[in-house]
Amino acid sequence: MTASPPGVMPRKVAVIGAGDIGCGWAALCASAGWPVSIFDGNARVTERAIVEVPRRTRALVAHQRATLGMVERGLLEYQQAKSLLQAVSDAEWVIEAITEDLIAKQRLLAAVDEMALPGAVISSSSSGLHPKDIFAMCRGSHRCLVVHPLNPPEFVPLVEVLTGPHTTPAALQQAHGFLRALGRVPIYVKKPVPGYVVGRIAAAVWRECIDLVLSGVVNVDDLDRAVSLGPALGWAAGGPHLTYHLAAGDQGVKIFLQRLLQSFEAWWGDLKTWSRLEPDQQRALIQAIEQAYTSKVGMLREARDRRLSAIISALEQSRQ
Amino acid sequence: MTASPPGVMPRKVAVIGAGDIGCGWAALCASAGWPVSIFDGNARVTERAIVEVPRRTRALVAHQRATLGMVERGLLEYQQAKSLLQAVSDAEWVIEAITEDLIAKQRLLAAVDEMALPGAVISSSSSGLHPKDIFAMCRGSHRCLVVHPLNPPEFVPLVEVLTGPHTTPAALQQAHGFLRALGRVPIYVKKPVPGYVVGRIAAAVWRECIDLVLSGVVNVDDLDRAVSLGPALGWAAGGPHLTYHLAAGDQGVKIFLQRLLQSFEAWWGDLKTWSRLEPDQQRALIQAIEQAYTSKVGMLREARDRRLSAIISALEQSRQ
Repeated sequence: MTASPPGVMPRKVAVIGAGDIGCGWAALCASAGWPVSIFDGNARVTERAIVEVPRRTRALVAHQRATLGMVERGLLEYQQAKSLLQAVSDAEWVIEAITEDLIAKQRLLAAVDEMALPGAVISSSSSGLHPKDIFAMCRGSHRCLVVHPLNPPEFVPLVEVLTGPHTTPAALQQAHGFLRALGRVPIYVKKPVPGYVVGRIAAAVWRECIDLVLSGVVNVDDLDRAVSLGPALGWAAGGPHLTYHLAAGDQGVKIFLQRLLQSFEAWWGDLKTWSRLEPDQQRALIQAIEQAYTSKVGMLREARDRRLSAIISALEQSRQ
Repeated sequence: MTASPPGVMPRKVAVIGAGDIGCGWAALCASAGWPVSIFDGNARVTERAIVEVPRRTRALVAHQRATLGMVERGLLEYQQAKSLLQAVSDAEWVIEAITEDLIAKQRLLAAVDEMALPGAVISSSSSGLHPKDIFAMCRGSHRCLVVHPLNPPEFVPLVEVLTGPHTTPAALQQAHGFLRALGRVPIYVKKPVPGYVVGRIAAAVWRECIDLVLSGVVNVDDLDRAVSLGPALGWAAGGPHLTYHLAAGDQGVKIFLQRLLQSFEAWWGDLKTWSRLEPDQQRALIQAIEQAYTSKVGMLREARDRRLSAIISALEQSRQ
């Protein structure tokens, strides 16, 4: 079997790991009409995917992110595999989506690499580990790379792509083709750093948010509203650098720095730098979040997905 | 003159400072049909506002954020004042929007406070100074508070509100009424910290972004795309805390912490903590941003505003 040219669907996708990320990958691929096989080492988790993947795939129709015909075509060929071998053996793209545990990923990927077709590409959904480490035990590491999606993968277009030391341009091109066919926007992380790009930025945000809440500056719901109706809108419309390039008249970021660097430097000097969340702080944070959001997680997620799909559709239309 | 009840328009708004933020405030108020007077100590800047405010106000019609009738009604009563006194004397709401310089703000606000009507509310657009300091020289500090908008103020709904030690509930309520009538979403910063809530979060994000670019991990355009098509979409749809509350199955943030706190702690330990951007780094950053965005700032801003208004409208519709 040879690799598909970019933009063409793979004959089959295997998703290994049926948690939230794995189910999201499966829903995304199924919504494009692609045959998907999912497998999880935990039988109860695989069981849950029987319901969860079709539900999430069909939700994309309700959110106008996929067509009913495509979704039903994909779901016709959706299956829970009984073994890793059954899932992987005829797949042209294998997506690893197990928990973020280096040893577990290394073992699983070595096994996948042994079973997979010669022309298959293998991707890890790791959110921050070094590709060199993840694929350390794979003999076929030339066709392995990291493709990190965000949560929920069937909605958020961004994926971070990292190659390992042995990844070939052909494998990268093959993965790129699949991702573009799924409407994803891959960005390339040139040097692997812990957390890649998105994880580091998210970590910087979340530490400061947690600190502002735990030190009583602002409530969880006001903080979430502050970000969602404030800077996140600007960042979604332009990204951080473009935001500041446009924030100080027609001469761009140069003037912005002249006017506001002093403020930023004062704030940088005052930002929190702790790197551990102690058990009592964890409890306080969980309590604050649960008090701010009393509805069931499923209902909150449904409402969030509605907003998310509306934003994504609006952005797509405004870019045309 | 007595204060307007919440939701009712002020007889007149005075905007002091006609830079990007001041013009944005003026455009927002004019787009609601409110009479606005703008003044800047620099005559050339006031001059620019003659063109700039009507342009930005009318752009809101093109972006479907305001109706033509309301905008033209507001612009009929829009004027550049010849003096601070002329601007302030009959205003029911005075908005200070000069540069972020404590001494300049203190002096200006003391003068405004002397001239303003007894029933007027006075707000500062400061992005991070302590209200106690900003209004230190105002005898009428009971009717003074901080209302910090984001850029561009006529689009982004969020405003951060901070009261000073003497601000009365009546003044807060009056400001709140004006803000709600303008479609703004005020959040309350309970304890003043440098940068308030939004500035601190933005500073944490931008430091990490700058570092990732300057250390060669990712290009400016890929980074901006990573944020805008990645975490910013999730944050816009849900805010950081809700995002993680929904990222690990039906049991919420508790399970998320169990699964991913270890990763976050590793990233927190590795995040950058510098607080100064050296001159050569500033030059490198400016160059990287200018290379990533070669179009004119005005054109980039127009495209950004189109995306921004599309996102805001989509969110409003999906929340209904």
